Amino acid sequence: MARPDDFERMWRDLAPVGRSRGSGGYFRQPFTSAEREASAWFREQCAARSLDLEHDRFGNLVAWWRPVPGRGVLTGSHLDSVLDGGAYDGPLGVVSALAAVDLLRDRGFTPARPLGIGVFVEEEGSRFGLACLGSRLATGATPWKHARTLTDRDDVSLEEAMADVERGDGDLLADVDAFVELHVEQGRDLVDRGEAVGVASGIWPHGRYRFEFAGEANHAGTTRMEDRRDPMLSYALTVLAADEQARLSGQRATFGRLDVRPNGTNAVPSRVTAWLDARADTAEHLDALLADIERLARQRVGRDGTALTVTAESVSPAVAFDPALAARVAGPRGLPVIPTAAGHDAGVLSAAGVPTAMLFVRNPTGVSHSPQERAETADCLAGVDALADTLETLCG
Amino acid sequence: MARPDDFERMWRDLAPVGRSRGSGGYFRQPFTSAEREASAWFREQCAARSLDLEHDRFGNLVAWWRPVPGRGVLTGSHLDSVLDGGAYDGPLGVVSALAAVDLLRDRGFTPARPLGIGVFVEEEGSRFGLACLGSRLATGATPWKHARTLTDRDDVSLEEAMADVERGDGDLLADVDAFVELHVEQGRDLVDRGEAVGVASGIWPHGRYRFEFAGEANHAGTTRMEDRRDPMLSYALTVLAADEQARLSGQRATFGRLDVRPNGTNAVPSRVTAWLDARADTAEHLDALLADIERLARQRVGRDGTALTVTAESVSPAVAFDPALAARVAGPRGLPVIPTAAGHDAGVLSAAGVPTAMLFVRNPTGVSHSPQERAETADCLAGVDALADTLETLCG
Repeated sequence: MARPDDFERMWRDLAPVGRSRGSGGYFRQPFTSAEREASAWFREQCAARSLDLEHDRFGNLVAWWRPVPGRGVLTGSHLDSVLDGGAYDGPLGVVSALAAVDLLRDRGFTPARPLGIGVFVEEEGSRFGLACLGSRLATGATPWKHARTLTDRDDVSLEEAMADVERGDGDLLADVDAFVELHVEQGRDLVDRGEAVGVASGIWPHGRYRFEFAGEANHAGTTRMEDRRDPMLSYALTVLAADEQARLSGQRATFGRLDVRPNGTNAVPSRVTAWLDARADTAEHLDALLADIERLARQRVGRDGTALTVTAESVSPAVAFDPALAARVAGPRGLPVIPTAAGHDAGVLSAAGVPTAMLFVRNPTGVSHSPQERAETADCLAGVDALADTLETLCG
Repeated sequence: MARPDDFERMWRDLAPVGRSRGSGGYFRQPFTSAEREASAWFREQCAARSLDLEHDRFGNLVAWWRPVPGRGVLTGSHLDSVLDGGAYDGPLGVVSALAAVDLLRDRGFTPARPLGIGVFVEEEGSRFGLACLGSRLATGATPWKHARTLTDRDDVSLEEAMADVERGDGDLLADVDAFVELHVEQGRDLVDRGEAVGVASGIWPHGRYRFEFAGEANHAGTTRMEDRRDPMLSYALTVLAADEQARLSGQRATFGRLDVRPNGTNAVPSRVTAWLDARADTAEHLDALLADIERLARQRVGRDGTALTVTAESVSPAVAFDPALAARVAGPRGLPVIPTAAGHDAGVLSAAGVPTAMLFVRNPTGVSHSPQERAETADCLAGVDALADTLETLCG
């Protein structure tokens, strides 16, 4: 059984890092002081456990427990957050990995192959717009020559942001035979099933699409309604269309991020840029959902005299995790196997050919990407136990 | 006839001040370097004409041509802009006033009473949210104790922003018997009439209302559509409802400014704050328009499980300019008398009991609050002539 005191101590260490006093949510955008502080904390924890730290040139970290050389097994997750995010999304997988190492040592277990704890950068894509950026770079799914010019909202490029970050030149994944990521559930499947821990079957295909609605700035008072080319109207219809299409098809569509120009009270906007997050159970359904939303948007654009450009910023295909590995992870405890619509570094590694599994820990409200995100300590400790069992099996 | 060379030279001086290289639009928010540069330019112009500069404690300026003491006549306008605004909205009234003084001197005219050129600060409300802030403070329509704590988007208060501004302690309007503001037209009434210059009959009642839609942040992928409390949906319906109600009633309603929290692509927003700009031909119609929009918004809020707070940030009653003064201004040239839905400092002074008139100069496209705002030089010079005639009549 995992040690509750040590687990909770780690949790207390991390609790204030990047937390907003106002909302209680977290702002741990990559290569900012808050995220660097969380990363430094991780390094200290690894040093205290005599783990062998390696970093690659993208800022990803792996801390190895390596009593013997050779190919190994990786666990871990990420420490960055969405804007105003919860405490658990990411850090739970890192803290649980450290606690699992402690538990395995308490059990007197010594791995017969290297066991690593990884921390991937910019999993949320909250700063540079591309989710799972660290694992995409590490696997080569996204080449550096494309990623380096990505910019944040202040027009700082990824290359500039990473200039001061300590980096190595290793390929962290070269000797990895399997990856197991533990994560807080971002829904209520485990609540409905009355289970503390579950195993992922796969990840829905999903994408981020930038909708740029262009119109004409004008005076909000003097311009007759019929003389306007107002991109806010086109955007508003598109928001409602996306919601309706997702409901009708049982999929997911969200407009959560927006940039309005010039964003003045007494001016019709010249431009509204909005980001659609769309997810579906199959690639065909995702394509159909996007096509339906875009079709309805263009109908309205024609009526408003505006213009629309749609750009796919990132599209992630469906991920089916290794069924044999999932069965081994679920096996001894009979854990339920459930799908998810959330993207994870595990999905990127799986797509790159690394046998991969995910463990989910129950989330009592299902709320995530929010300061209200929660997990009970007892459930988290059950997650550590399940992770330790899995690692013991894979490294035994 | 006004001197085209001098007029165009002043225009060239002002052209680069606060102009965006990207859009070509202007960013002259009050107490920023661009607006201070424009203000310094005005002081130089006044000094070159031996006008007597006075400032009040709010940053408003009046430059007096005062061959004799006593009560006087004021003209002028403002130098600040909306975000990404046009060149003419405001500056045309200031440049034309300077050119009118030149023209009157060319005519050998000496005023029999003081003639002042005023520049009011923050007419657009683009920084502190309250339009006509300078004239509201100068007339007492808004007390300083209420205005000083207004904040901009970076939480800088008006009092902080004004800390370094040179200020006097005079009441600039104490000795003003009449105000005449020249302004570029922000519509196409004069185009339709084939006239270069017109006179305002009055200003529509109008207001700015803050709509705060509160929901619950959540994961954009894993949260079922039916489990969401998404304030973006409530906002989107409200945008379309405002547009439809304004069209049906022949009034104006615009959502041009928005603040989304946390504004992340993969999170359902927790809060959408939006500003409604609403205008109508009568106070009753404005009240009805706002009530209709709010009613439809609340219906959708009930359906979305969100919450709505509506706050009136500023409401300006209808202004009917002094009919006798308008007749005197229009008289000799037979200028058309037209209403407007745009607020102006002239409206604030009129409401404070100062006999007030406005001259409009034709805008070929009608576009305003936009980099595309235009006025032909010939029309501007006709405006200077009309303004000079008016000032000669009032100060003769």
